[in-house]
This record gives sequence, structure tokens and C-alpha cells, in this order.
Amino acid sequence: MSQTILHGYFRSSAAFRTRIALNLKGVAAEHRFRHLRKGEQRSPDFLKLNPQGLVPALEIDGNVLTQSLAIIEYLDETRPNPPLLPKDSAGRARVRALAYATAIEIHPINNLRVLQDLASRFGADDKAVAGWFRHWVMETFGPLEKMLAGDKATGKFCHGDAPTLADICLVPQVVNNTRFDVDMTPYPTINRIHAACLATPAFADAMPAKQPDAE
Amino acid sequence: MSQTILHGYFRSSAAFRTRIALNLKGVAAEHRFRHLRKGEQRSPDFLKLNPQGLVPALEIDGNVLTQSLAIIEYLDETRPNPPLLPKDSAGRARVRALAYATAIEIHPINNLRVLQDLASRFGADDKAVAGWFRHWVMETFGPLEKMLAGDKATGKFCHGDAPTLADICLVPQVVNNTRFDVDMTPYPTINRIHAACLATPAFADAMPAKQPDAE
Repeated sequence: MSQTILHGYFRSSAAFRTRIALNLKGVAAEHRFRHLRKGEQRSPDFLKLNPQGLVPALEIDGNVLTQSLAIIEYLDETRPNPPLLPKDSAGRARVRALAYATAIEIHPINNLRVLQDLASRFGADDKAVAGWFRHWVMETFGPLEKMLAGDKATGKFCHGDAPTLADICLVPQVVNNTRFDVDMTPYPTINRIHAACLATPAFADAMPAKQPDAE
Repeated sequence: MSQTILHGYFRSSAAFRTRIALNLKGVAAEHRFRHLRKGEQRSPDFLKLNPQGLVPALEIDGNVLTQSLAIIEYLDETRPNPPLLPKDSAGRARVRALAYATAIEIHPINNLRVLQDLASRFGADDKAVAGWFRHWVMETFGPLEKMLAGDKATGKFCHGDAPTLADICLVPQVVNNTRFDVDMTPYPTINRIHAACLATPAFADAMPAKQPDAE
């Protein structure tokens, strides 16, 4: 079997998601780090792996996979246990929708390259950038809290009592929020699920602060 | 069988994707329209369906589904023919990564509510907003063109000779680009695939201009 190598960055939410999924699946990976603030994701050798110049990229089973959500679906298809999506299609649609609420409606608008662009393009200072960040979190976390609190399908985790793709996307966002002083008091269900996740080694070991490249 | 109802808006890329998928699967749906510029997606009756206040929402098989990508995966699981993802996991990962390049790396940063926020928060005028839009398209379309042109898995469409989730995400973005004068000459493979898609009724009939709520 070919070597499994994760190209990531400690602070990248997308790399964080991938670390959680690898941990949940029990897949050992060598970790290589691309320092995003130093632009290492745009080095020629990395662009050969991923022309998009984004982390993560995962070398696995002889493939180079990109986009964290595509990687996690691949892991779930090729290593079915423990499952990261429920068996029924309606449940899978719920889990994916909860995951995308964070991974699509918040994270792309708030990731490092966009925040840097706000500064260079519109002269946004740190305070304005933080205000932008919090705005897009709150736009989604309000409805997300309702979707989680008001549905019997929510259990110890976002969907039932085992972690799914929804939790894998939620936790890195909540962790990221602390860097921008997001007030988390309006989101008790999210906070409860976040704590349940971090009580498990798969999530705790994937935390940015625990990675070798953490600053 | 319960009625299938798509809540959409002619110009929403996410609703456009869902229309294409429904057409490809041959699923007839009643179309209801939520005028985003008039804020109709925040009406109480719609927020009951989707607390996120985003289109599309699809009522199908007794469920209310949200998030276009989750809806399309559901349609593909429950109505397998014609497939919108290849059978092999590596191929599925490639198609999802190509789809997410557009649906995650471009669209969320460039959708209506973000563009409106740039204007209100940073005083961005139409020219600045268009510059922002084009920037994020070019950041991804350059690499995407390489990923498509340089891979034998690319066929008449993004992956082989039948439309997949990747094409479903690509076409609405290319159509949207025309509204912001994106120079498409650097992307011959994308243009070729886009034309192939629009030559099929499933894509052509889903075009924004063909919807009853088009302005």
C-alpha cells in the first residue's frame, strides 16, 4: 500500500477537518506542513500536487485528493467504519446540509486569503476584518442553532450519538471563532456538541495547537 | 407520492444547479420563486422551511432538503439513473473536488448577500464589487482550467462523456460570470465543456432566462 501523506497547515479549518476524519477512520498519515502565511502553498512542488494552491491535499491509495469535503467522502466510501454519514438518504442529506452550513456558508467567506484581500482591497483594519468574520458566523450560527436544537435527529452529536461529517465541519469553525472573539452564548446546542466532540481523542488530537507546526 | 416543490430564484446559482439536477434525473417539480433582492427568502413561511433563509429548498419524498449540493447528492442516491457521480471512489473524489472548486471556492464569496455587504460595509461601488467578483473567479478558474485540460479523465464533460456534479456546478458559475464581464478567453477547456452542457436540454432548460420569474 502506498504511503498516506496529508499536506496541511495547523490553522487551516479544511486541514483540521481532514485530520479529524483520518483520526476517526484510524488512518495513519505522514503530516507535511505548508505555511499559508508564508505562501508555501504556492510553491512549485505543491502546485504540482494541487494546482489550486490550497491545503489540504491528501496522497492516499496512489491518488492525490484535494478539497477537504471530497477527501472525507472518499475516506467514508473506501473505509466505511465508523461511518461519517448515516445510512438513510434523508439523514445523509441532513448531515451534509448541516456540514455545508459551516463549510460553504461561513468558511469560504472567512478564510485567510479572503480576509487578507479585504485588507488590501478595501483597507480593512483588524477591527473591520474581525467584524466581517463575526457577521458571517452569526448569519449562519443563528439558524444552525435552531436547526440543531429543534430536531429530534440531533443527539449527543449533530446527528445521533456518533460523530458525522457535520461535526467534523462544525468543530474547526467553533475553534476558529475564538480567534475573532465571537460571542458563543446564543448557541447552547452548538456549544454542547462542540464539547462532546472535543471529549473524544479523534477531535482533540486534531486541534491546531497540538500540531507540530503550531505557533 | 408527495409533491415535489423547488423553492428557488431564477438568478441563484444554487437554485440553477438544482434545476439542472432535477432535469437530468427527469424529476418533475413545481417551482415556487423567492425573490432574493426583495428579501422574500426571509419571509416567515420560508424560514419555516429553511431557517437559513437561503434558496434552494426542495420538498421531496416528504422531506424538506436544503443546500444544493446536499440536494443533488440525495437525488443521486435515491434516483441513481443517470448517475451524477462516477462509480469509482477516486473518480467520485475528482468530480466532487472539481465541483467544490466552483461551489465552495468561488460562489459563496461572490453571492448576492456578500456583494451587498461589500457595498454597505466598505462602501464598495459597482466597479469595486465587479473587481472582487472577477478576482475570485480568476483565482479558481486558472487552476481549474489546468485541472481539466491536463487530465485524461476529462471528456466531453468535466469527467468523461456524461454530465456530472462537476458540470452542474460549473455552468451556473460561467453564466454568472457574464454579468460581471469576466474575460473567458484564458479558459478554452471550460468554455468547450460549458458549450457541450448548454447543448443538452437539461442544462439549457434550467437557464435563468428561461425561468418564469426571470426579469
